[in-house]
Amino acid sequence: MSHRVVVIGGGFGGVNAVQHLRGAPVEITLIDRRNFHLFQPLTYQVATGALSPGEVAYPLRAIFKNADNVRVLLAEVTGVDLESRRVMLADVPGMEAVAPAEVGYDTLIVGAGSSYSYFGHEDWRQYAAEVKTLESAIGVRSRILRAFEAAEMQTDPDARAAEMTFVVVGAGPTGVEMSGQIAELARDTLHGDFRAVDSRNARVILVDALDRVLNDFPASLSRKAARSLEGLGVTIMVNRTVVDVDGESVTLSHADGSTERIPARTVVWAAGVTASSLSGHLAELSGAEVDRAGRITVEPDLSLPGHPEVIALGDMIRVRGSDGEIVTYPGVAPVAIQQGRYAAKAVARRLEGRTPAPFHYVDKGNIATIGRARAVAQIKFLKLSGFPAWLVWLLVHLFYLIGFQNRVLVLIKWSVSFFTHGRSARIISNAPGGDPPAGGHIAEPAVRGASDADAR
Amino acid sequence: MSHRVVVIGGGFGGVNAVQHLRGAPVEITLIDRRNFHLFQPLTYQVATGALSPGEVAYPLRAIFKNADNVRVLLAEVTGVDLESRRVMLADVPGMEAVAPAEVGYDTLIVGAGSSYSYFGHEDWRQYAAEVKTLESAIGVRSRILRAFEAAEMQTDPDARAAEMTFVVVGAGPTGVEMSGQIAELARDTLHGDFRAVDSRNARVILVDALDRVLNDFPASLSRKAARSLEGLGVTIMVNRTVVDVDGESVTLSHADGSTERIPARTVVWAAGVTASSLSGHLAELSGAEVDRAGRITVEPDLSLPGHPEVIALGDMIRVRGSDGEIVTYPGVAPVAIQQGRYAAKAVARRLEGRTPAPFHYVDKGNIATIGRARAVAQIKFLKLSGFPAWLVWLLVHLFYLIGFQNRVLVLIKWSVSFFTHGRSARIISNAPGGDPPAGGHIAEPAVRGASDADAR
Repeated sequence: MSHRVVVIGGGFGGVNAVQHLRGAPVEITLIDRRNFHLFQPLTYQVATGALSPGEVAYPLRAIFKNADNVRVLLAEVTGVDLESRRVMLADVPGMEAVAPAEVGYDTLIVGAGSSYSYFGHEDWRQYAAEVKTLESAIGVRSRILRAFEAAEMQTDPDARAAEMTFVVVGAGPTGVEMSGQIAELARDTLHGDFRAVDSRNARVILVDALDRVLNDFPASLSRKAARSLEGLGVTIMVNRTVVDVDGESVTLSHADGSTERIPARTVVWAAGVTASSLSGHLAELSGAEVDRAGRITVEPDLSLPGHPEVIALGDMIRVRGSDGEIVTYPGVAPVAIQQGRYAAKAVARRLEGRTPAPFHYVDKGNIATIGRARAVAQIKFLKLSGFPAWLVWLLVHLFYLIGFQNRVLVLIKWSVSFFTHGRSARIISNAPGGDPPAGGHIAEPAVRGASDADAR
Repeated sequence: MSHRVVVIGGGFGGVNAVQHLRGAPVEITLIDRRNFHLFQPLTYQVATGALSPGEVAYPLRAIFKNADNVRVLLAEVTGVDLESRRVMLADVPGMEAVAPAEVGYDTLIVGAGSSYSYFGHEDWRQYAAEVKTLESAIGVRSRILRAFEAAEMQTDPDARAAEMTFVVVGAGPTGVEMSGQIAELARDTLHGDFRAVDSRNARVILVDALDRVLNDFPASLSRKAARSLEGLGVTIMVNRTVVDVDGESVTLSHADGSTERIPARTVVWAAGVTASSLSGHLAELSGAEVDRAGRITVEPDLSLPGHPEVIALGDMIRVRGSDGEIVTYPGVAPVAIQQGRYAAKAVARRLEGRTPAPFHYVDKGNIATIGRARAVAQIKFLKLSGFPAWLVWLLVHLFYLIGFQNRVLVLIKWSVSFFTHGRSARIISNAPGGDPPAGGHIAEPAVRGASDADAR
């Protein structure tokens, strides 16, 4: 029997690991609780109606259609047994008694990703939706559009103002992108759609605990991004901590201890990620460390301490360097992609009886888009902003989008909306499940891919 | 104060009525429980992953953006008071305490549409999903894709066969289209996606109580359609009545009284529509007749008997001809479109103190698509089938799709999938709300638009 590789998670890490193992003499089983790979860096565009869900999600089976040594399983991972080398499975919602109870492995690659944490306030989740999964992005889209609909009908001026106020928590790339997109939606796309209210009067507030937006970028680009956002009408509130979210308002605390209550019906959460619970599970089994954000510390070759046959990658890990120092890579797609590729090579090397060299991350830069033709980018020592940065962003994202048709459709949508300010996917879903299910269960975030989230 | 026109329902009837009243000296309020106009003739393509929801749904506000005399309200209609001329409203799910309690009218236009009935077996609805609303089409897409995923993992041969069996009930245009699409999905798109099963072994069964498919078409086209479907691998079972649906199987009864149980996990319902409950409500208030399908009988000018200020249209009505005979028009988009246009003219005429001429339907033909490059069409005395019919279908549907961008995107998707057999929107939604909510409440189907449904 050939060497069995089990990959948990069809995110950037998992998909790239499988892609680079398709020619190898191994049998691969890719497990995900969704049937699609999600292009998470663009999920926020679904949340504001600029792209349709199908344009940022690509069926895993379509990706590996012609890879005969790859099998895809739609199932939830409930646990791992490191001793007997098995992954325990359960059915995903909507299926019953079909998933195998377990799958055995010779090599296990885990890219289970992360989800948003709410600083220990799980009750905020119901009011402050996030845009990390496709379902939650669709839920946020409905909430934003419903807020404008409610404002149109609301006759009480205070209640109307609360409907027209949008608070985005977390000024990392996702928060910056979301606040810029909501502002453009209100200013351009929806302008003229309403009779009782002017959508341009919407208030978009971007909050962060640190003292500037895009803290991972050079200070000069932070300033440019802030100016761009302000040009779109976004109010930036830095040095503020969120102390309460209750569905009617957000309460912020200043450094001096004073608090401020902002009536706002729509809150988008883009702050603080926590690694998949599978990370903690593996740490418990292996004795590896986990940090405050739930990330497990792996060896320089991304393997679990004492278990060279188990590799973890993406934003659920920290990596011990050859010098013993622990490195936390940013939770972005390029890191997961490179680690996925590395994992495939490491497996191939081990099969040849060789020891893989330590993982080395090649930082190609950092990019965040703010809106139509506005972005900031840092590529090595080059700092770009405005239209040139946006062009780079456009090309990079189109290039990495999977599937020829998706690229063409997204390019057309972007071109049309660039000239018309339109957003075609403005659907309010009345399905009760538009909002994300609350997490908790070990299988819950276990197979989300690595992402463009901002660990803050 | 100018004349107040209230339009219930943003389907083909309502939208066309408003379109043709935008220049008139009236104030229009369009009420729908969704924020979009649904292009229902293509909803079945969402159910099979060929099109994305955003491509068949267009925001009502975007349609009437520049029509200053048009106000759109996102609300549920709970009732009508014919005496005081008011429409009673409630909030849609997800909004609270924002909808006005009522809206007064001088003229009321009601295009509340229809929904599927289950021959009095409401319990079948949970197992036999329909594709009339966008939410239910998304739910059907998830069910079909999940069935293949389950078959891939299922090890019991009988259970696997049940997962690979798809029963479509009702061989009108929607049923024919759905069965053809599922067959193509299995035969072409998904071929090679699975390892344990061959998707081409899927069984697609089309059931109807009558003795031929497409009963509204000439017999020669019915035969051609049947042959086309069989060429795609669809099994046609006519002269059979559904007597039970239980989530595991469908039981059919033959004319001789014998029954047959077909193990099938996925059932699509495309038989038997019932008019919006608003139809019965108006009949009760006005004393008008309703037929078995819940359709109210209106006057030759589409007005409610005794209430010339109330016009009903689309597939919730039957029309009394000038000769006293009652006409039931097919529940298709062209009827609703012509009636919407007529309603606008009738209102304008009444404002000028003139009496509108009776409504006259211009039948431009009938068309049903079976699959890639296969369709049947009857245009006056011309009967088309195969590729020419499909070209006509393509052009007609593209022409009526609202929005330049939608047309371009849909054309590109169709072109790409024509050559590659691909379907890009193959997303299984894990949201618990993927399946349609059960109806019942008076407001429930009240504002669905007129449709391509098959009253059988």
